Amino acid sequence: MGNLKGACIIGQSGGPTSVINASAAGAIQTALKCGDITRVLAAQNGIKGVLEDTLFDCGKEDAVELDLMKTTPASALGSCRYKLKDSEVDDTDYKRILEIFKKYDVRYFFYNGGNDSMDTCNKVSKYMEKVGYECRIMGIPKTIDNDLYGTDHCPGFGSAAKYISTSIAELSLDNKIYGVGSVIILEIMGRNAGWLTAAAAIANEIGEGPDLVYLPETPFFMDQFVSDIKAVAAKQKSVMVAVSEGVRDKDGKFISEYGSDLASQKDAFGHSQMGGLAAYLEGVVKDETGLKTRGIELSLLQRCAAHYASATDIEESYMAGATAVTKAVEGQTDMMVGFKRAEGSAYKCETVLLPLAEVANKEKVVPAEWINKEGNNVTQACIDHILPLVKGESTEKVEANGLPRFAKLKKEFVR
Amino acid sequence: MGNLKGACIIGQSGGPTSVINASAAGAIQTALKCGDITRVLAAQNGIKGVLEDTLFDCGKEDAVELDLMKTTPASALGSCRYKLKDSEVDDTDYKRILEIFKKYDVRYFFYNGGNDSMDTCNKVSKYMEKVGYECRIMGIPKTIDNDLYGTDHCPGFGSAAKYISTSIAELSLDNKIYGVGSVIILEIMGRNAGWLTAAAAIANEIGEGPDLVYLPETPFFMDQFVSDIKAVAAKQKSVMVAVSEGVRDKDGKFISEYGSDLASQKDAFGHSQMGGLAAYLEGVVKDETGLKTRGIELSLLQRCAAHYASATDIEESYMAGATAVTKAVEGQTDMMVGFKRAEGSAYKCETVLLPLAEVANKEKVVPAEWINKEGNNVTQACIDHILPLVKGESTEKVEANGLPRFAKLKKEFVR
Repeated sequence: MGNLKGACIIGQSGGPTSVINASAAGAIQTALKCGDITRVLAAQNGIKGVLEDTLFDCGKEDAVELDLMKTTPASALGSCRYKLKDSEVDDTDYKRILEIFKKYDVRYFFYNGGNDSMDTCNKVSKYMEKVGYECRIMGIPKTIDNDLYGTDHCPGFGSAAKYISTSIAELSLDNKIYGVGSVIILEIMGRNAGWLTAAAAIANEIGEGPDLVYLPETPFFMDQFVSDIKAVAAKQKSVMVAVSEGVRDKDGKFISEYGSDLASQKDAFGHSQMGGLAAYLEGVVKDETGLKTRGIELSLLQRCAAHYASATDIEESYMAGATAVTKAVEGQTDMMVGFKRAEGSAYKCETVLLPLAEVANKEKVVPAEWINKEGNNVTQACIDHILPLVKGESTEKVEANGLPRFAKLKKEFVR
Repeated sequence: MGNLKGACIIGQSGGPTSVINASAAGAIQTALKCGDITRVLAAQNGIKGVLEDTLFDCGKEDAVELDLMKTTPASALGSCRYKLKDSEVDDTDYKRILEIFKKYDVRYFFYNGGNDSMDTCNKVSKYMEKVGYECRIMGIPKTIDNDLYGTDHCPGFGSAAKYISTSIAELSLDNKIYGVGSVIILEIMGRNAGWLTAAAAIANEIGEGPDLVYLPETPFFMDQFVSDIKAVAAKQKSVMVAVSEGVRDKDGKFISEYGSDLASQKDAFGHSQMGGLAAYLEGVVKDETGLKTRGIELSLLQRCAAHYASATDIEESYMAGATAVTKAVEGQTDMMVGFKRAEGSAYKCETVLLPLAEVANKEKVVPAEWINKEGNNVTQACIDHILPLVKGESTEKVEANGLPRFAKLKKEFVR
């Protein structure tokens, strides 16, 4: 595998995290220093930016702003949810991508996203190989959901875990102030994988964790849920519940859909009432227990709270982006950068390369042995696994006025 | 006004804030150093702790834990929502309070709360004066709502304002990533006073503030709301809306009640769908504009997010508690500690004393001149007023594992 000279494109895809821009910064800053990479381009809104020829030159950006990307939430390059068709069925998009790659002599493509993005990477990689266009393609993982296959954990998860666990600890204190029976139900993201909801349990380490934890990995029984809450309330008055948005009944129907059925009802103005799982469960628990109950949905806050990102996560996310570039320049292609936990009691994270084909479109869920027998909490082993990922406070820069200083990119388009 | 020797009682009341414990710490630590105060007692769950004789000795607490109260959210002493009857109608509670005051030779009473708590203070003060029991009584303000009369602002508001404005800035970045039309509606606390919702607008200072701001101070017209959103969406695609939980139609009906009307409907299991204003407005905006819309309720998070408290607020809250003790020992009674903003362009906050009778049960709302003509935003003068209060980052202590270190009180009861 000899030297390959040419431009690179970096893109972001899917839902953002607090630290996806740290990965982009790692890739951009490493690429800018790399002799073989002649020009560093960023695609506006991921693969759509390639298809639409909206690419901007990262070499024109101020170094200080690129640095600020490490602590700027959301997708600084712009994101998309665009799934490429199978090239055997329709190769229009692939022809266009090849055209753009040729136009700018693109020999490196770095794509920063979740399962779907790894699928995109893999498809582009296969097509380029088929048509004989030499281009090294690397996936850089991100997802608060922590559900990518083959990696110990995912960039973005640690920061969301830190925000969720600290928020639940703060809410737990708040829930106890009156010394009377009260229930808080916190709805946490994770449609199929319960990692983020499990992360709430690490607040047990400071004595303010959830009493009950419900993951999508085990079926949800409303009767058990209500009796679990009654049992905790009888013992200690205040009850803190962490529940994944993705919990399903034994037939696989999302519990949130019970609420949606209601939401289809209209008022006199023809308007319907939205509201997710937390709102629905709040109603059920109020009705069934008579306890003061509040459903709270963390919603988008949990994926963009850069003000409380994990320093470990920021550092590892940056490393993932930088490693993708270094390894590609060394000759690797068609790989995703993953994490491996070094053996031993002290936490240490190393990068590994995983074939994209193995990662794409697979999901890693919380192992059954990390969920208790009753299906209403996680084990200490699960907590011990997650805990090192939240270590260290965000290094976010703050303006003199007390508000965060986010990166401002110029985005000089090259078209 | 001569020296008065005796014990003191400190209590907390009403909904908590991120920094109410900073005020309690200011009062406790100052009282512990004060020669005239012979014993420093804390009432478990506010005035209820006095009535029930559940008082604990702050002198037995570790100094390091008292210090940690500055950055521990919720009410460390326990809170209550208990309104004393008029003593002319029923003086049972007052007699009991007097009995407890005599039992422990209590000569100082410090009560940390909002409007209702100032009313409690004032009633106790008047009763003690009537029966000739010498006791100096001081109110220490707290409320995220910032609605106490006579003070420039309230302890607790700055921290909530910092959390809300930074959260809306983070959500604003998140809302823009796909470059397509999308709306976020953020529901913020404040039933009658729109201060917290107005605080969202300070994120304009970093270019990521709300496009539209709706306060309870002006009537809410659904038609205008929808057309405001359409107008912003037409210009710039993504729309960020801050709306107070307390917005009302022209007849004074809470908009959230339109949603509650729907929530009274039951599903097949006899359960109803909860969900507040944000959920209702999400439905309306989706229906009326067809735009991707998400309603998010900050809920309790905004009153307990100590991890992102304002250093200015922590310091001022501590000062309010300390000043209450110092002034009482000097001879003042029946007063609430308030804040006055020093003249000049540089922000400086001084304490003042306000007669409790003037403060109790009054509300300070956002002045009409700080709301724009259209009733859908606040003015720069409003932003300039709030901005200094969010300055400085939380000094919260963090455990080695990356989770917050909260104060742990022993609470040795004296009964």
